[in-house]
Amino acid sequence: MHADAPRRLLLTPGPLTTSDPTRAVLDRDWGSRDTDFIELTTRLRLRLTAIAGGTGTHETVLLPGSGTFAVEAALQSLVPRDGLVLLLVNGAYGRRMAEMLRRIGRLHVVREWAEDEQVDAGELDRMLMADASITDVAVVHCETTSGLLNPIEAVAAVVNRHGRRMLVDAMSSFGALPIDASAMHLTAVMASSNKGLEGVPGVGFVVVDSAHLAGCAGNSTSLSLDLYDQAEGFRRNGQWRFTPPVQVAAALDAALDQFDAEGGVAARGARYRRLHAMLVDGMRTLGFETYLSPELQAPIIVTFKDPGPPFEFEPFYDALQRAGIVIYPGKLTRAPSFRIGCIGAITEDDMRRALTVIGQHCRQ
Amino acid sequence: MHADAPRRLLLTPGPLTTSDPTRAVLDRDWGSRDTDFIELTTRLRLRLTAIAGGTGTHETVLLPGSGTFAVEAALQSLVPRDGLVLLLVNGAYGRRMAEMLRRIGRLHVVREWAEDEQVDAGELDRMLMADASITDVAVVHCETTSGLLNPIEAVAAVVNRHGRRMLVDAMSSFGALPIDASAMHLTAVMASSNKGLEGVPGVGFVVVDSAHLAGCAGNSTSLSLDLYDQAEGFRRNGQWRFTPPVQVAAALDAALDQFDAEGGVAARGARYRRLHAMLVDGMRTLGFETYLSPELQAPIIVTFKDPGPPFEFEPFYDALQRAGIVIYPGKLTRAPSFRIGCIGAITEDDMRRALTVIGQHCRQ
Ligand SMILES: Cc1ncc(COP(=O)(O)O)c(C=O)c1O
Ligand SMILES: Cc1ncc(COP(=O)(O)O)c(C=O)c1O
Repeated sequence: MHADAPRRLLLTPGPLTTSDPTRAVLDRDWGSRDTDFIELTTRLRLRLTAIAGGTGTHETVLLPGSGTFAVEAALQSLVPRDGLVLLLVNGAYGRRMAEMLRRIGRLHVVREWAEDEQVDAGELDRMLMADASITDVAVVHCETTSGLLNPIEAVAAVVNRHGRRMLVDAMSSFGALPIDASAMHLTAVMASSNKGLEGVPGVGFVVVDSAHLAGCAGNSTSLSLDLYDQAEGFRRNGQWRFTPPVQVAAALDAALDQFDAEGGVAARGARYRRLHAMLVDGMRTLGFETYLSPELQAPIIVTFKDPGPPFEFEPFYDALQRAGIVIYPGKLTRAPSFRIGCIGAITEDDMRRALTVIGQHCRQ
Repeated sequence: MHADAPRRLLLTPGPLTTSDPTRAVLDRDWGSRDTDFIELTTRLRLRLTAIAGGTGTHETVLLPGSGTFAVEAALQSLVPRDGLVLLLVNGAYGRRMAEMLRRIGRLHVVREWAEDEQVDAGELDRMLMADASITDVAVVHCETTSGLLNPIEAVAAVVNRHGRRMLVDAMSSFGALPIDASAMHLTAVMASSNKGLEGVPGVGFVVVDSAHLAGCAGNSTSLSLDLYDQAEGFRRNGQWRFTPPVQVAAALDAALDQFDAEGGVAARGARYRRLHAMLVDGMRTLGFETYLSPELQAPIIVTFKDPGPPFEFEPFYDALQRAGIVIYPGKLTRAPSFRIGCIGAITEDDMRRALTVIGQHCRQ
């Protein structure tokens, strides 16, 4: 009933297709306070910090939870109780950060752009100039809602010039698009195990500026989501404060071996760009248009406009599913659309197969 | 480097030894919004509700996080903002609930007993009589700190008589000791995938009274830990609000197949009691004394007094580890002691092997 299911191709925003070697290491028990797991944890933290370009300035705090928990932990713990956060929003994940701050009861202002527009660093500059009480700026790197890439380098330059802190939700871009936490003076980068790093889901993490973290004791109104206390645990004895998902962590470490072997961020990003180009070209040939103009598009997930009748999404989704290809069963953008992802442990052959299935369905 | 490690025997409070069939189902990718995973999720929720004796009155809210997240989610979401929680504490996990409420900023009073004493239902009765403003009572079923079993039936009877709500942290007892959420009118039972249910770690859950939950919108000051919103997600479309640890959830479902095949709570509890008796008898023969008197002891994890020189814990721990047997590398109780667990996918032969290794080390 459980085993021997066919290999799926997950062209979704995650969980994604993982490799056989990554899943192979799931088949082991670990004592979470045992030497070998402590070593694995330490190695993982150093590797993730390095991928974020934070070695020497930042440290990685792992959480036994999904990506959303990591985002909220960063907001709970790194924004002082009397802080004021400016949220640059152009999709569902930016809006979710606003809802988090509302719940936590932390002051915030929201500047929202359309879902097919990048956040604007010039506008940000004017806002920071006008309001000296803004302490923190938060933005999503790749807005997975639409697949849009936000210009976080330009945003960081403005935020740094004004001497504010900056938090980046890099959930769907981490490992695929370069980020340099040291050079960009980022306060925090939030991500998870199961997107560009191609691990299985279950671990969220924050790469956080160590100097800032040191002053964050007691900010969080949640015990579970307190990054300061969680980091203290790692610092004290290399251990997780609460029971870690040991198998998920081990799989992430294995996935990082493959990440390194592939050639790190540059090579992974290049593969995703190739898959992305194949996807967009193939879909265009079939008459589909992308929701975003090409220069705004990250090579992570692509939103296609729903072309309307005779196209219908449900039979399209079902045809793909029958072929073992899973896409996101709905839309997140406000516009009528659907998304197809191009990240995960997949090859150009996989993408070719997906496009063949799509072509067969559409030409029927 | 990762694979082919020897089989470990984890005699810890978790993560625990899991069975080969449970780990086998980890080797698959799942689309988290796909029909088969939605079915798995629904089945899991119904099975967990049934194990808690809550079918018809309760529902299970799964969380993509460790057990602590489930405990905090219950406190965040089920205690009204103007509630007053009485915490019955006799160990580290009870104290952790107090720290959670302090962080959340929810009023609470703590009644603390010694770590080798049960919480007292008579005393509770007097406290509830004296203070009508107490809205909720929270208690740990098996205090994993010491291995002590709290008399939750007696506690529930008192709480019900006074018409208050009751939340039970059943992390280490769930699936091993009977609990009847309907009959006991429990507001919430919190537990996780990786203890008595013998899954891998990564899923926490709360079996919650549906009638009460319906009025809990907006109580939580954390978005991630909001049980009401999380339950809404399951109710709306059977899906998790945030990316679920798909492999961990699938392994839990497989572990529940084995739980059913073994004979449910009664049979699982009986096996743990046999393992517990072997452990205590074997250790007594070697001169070790238990920290708790036998009538207070749950068949989950046993605290042994540190007998002092010539016994030293570190060489003892190392000798076990060299034999592939992992125990908790320290103590949680205030008394000088160490703990050995007797739960997980282990057999009497496994326990015999552990006792042989311990005997060899102690007789050296
Ligand atoms: C940009 C972004 N932020 C946050 C999240 C939430 O992560 P999770 O679903 O693991 O909680 C996602 C998930 O797709 C995301 O793409
Ligand atoms: C009684 C009790 N409550 C809560 C927890 C915390 O669970 P986790 O470590 O999965 O966060 C534990 C863990 O051992 C426990 O035994």
